[in-house]
Amino acid sequence: MHFFYLKDTQYKLKRKGVWVKAISGERCQMLQIRLDPGFESDHCHPEEQIGLVLAGTISLTVYDETESCGKGDAYYIPANARHSFKVLSDEPAEILDVFSPPKEENRL
Amino acid sequence: MHFFYLKDTQYKLKRKGVWVKAISGERCQMLQIRLDPGFESDHCHPEEQIGLVLAGTISLTVYDETESCGKGDAYYIPANARHSFKVLSDEPAEILDVFSPPKEENRL
Repeated sequence: MHFFYLKDTQYKLKRKGVWVKAISGERCQMLQIRLDPGFESDHCHPEEQIGLVLAGTISLTVYDETESCGKGDAYYIPANARHSFKVLSDEPAEILDVFSPPKEENRL
Repeated sequence: MHFFYLKDTQYKLKRKGVWVKAISGERCQMLQIRLDPGFESDHCHPEEQIGLVLAGTISLTVYDETESCGKGDAYYIPANARHSFKVLSDEPAEILDVFSPPKEENRL
């Protein structure tokens, strides 16, 4: 399948506060993610990650560097880098995240 | 560098009709691309590609499958798959494209 009508696709609940739509290839994966207000996480994973904020505002920490990211801001998280984030806005945060290689847990 | 303020970043001219902002990692690369109205291309490359249309409309052919893609539509182009596209809208097309591995020509 080569075409995905994401705007007409329902989000799937990944876990409490995290809703995703995923396109998975062999080498990379694109996720449209909706994070509920107040959602926060602190983790690391072996997949490289690049993201772009589409709506809302998050605070993101990569290693010891923290920034507030709103619409049009992007970030790069190296493989295995410890990172944490929290949704600061009253509205959900909408994010376009890319993982390489694909995260198996997102093959919904 | 982990943070990129893409909305405040100027596009760079890649070639006539193609403007890009790029974030390159080790394994993947995210490009915000602006394609001028009428721009068209027909090519293939060894990098896997996943894209999301942010604005405008393009016609995209992957192998023998052709679709019109507007805002919120996405696509998957396998490595080495012949594909062609044309901007159909009077406004430029804005696209979020991901390549894995990164395309060297986009490390601007």
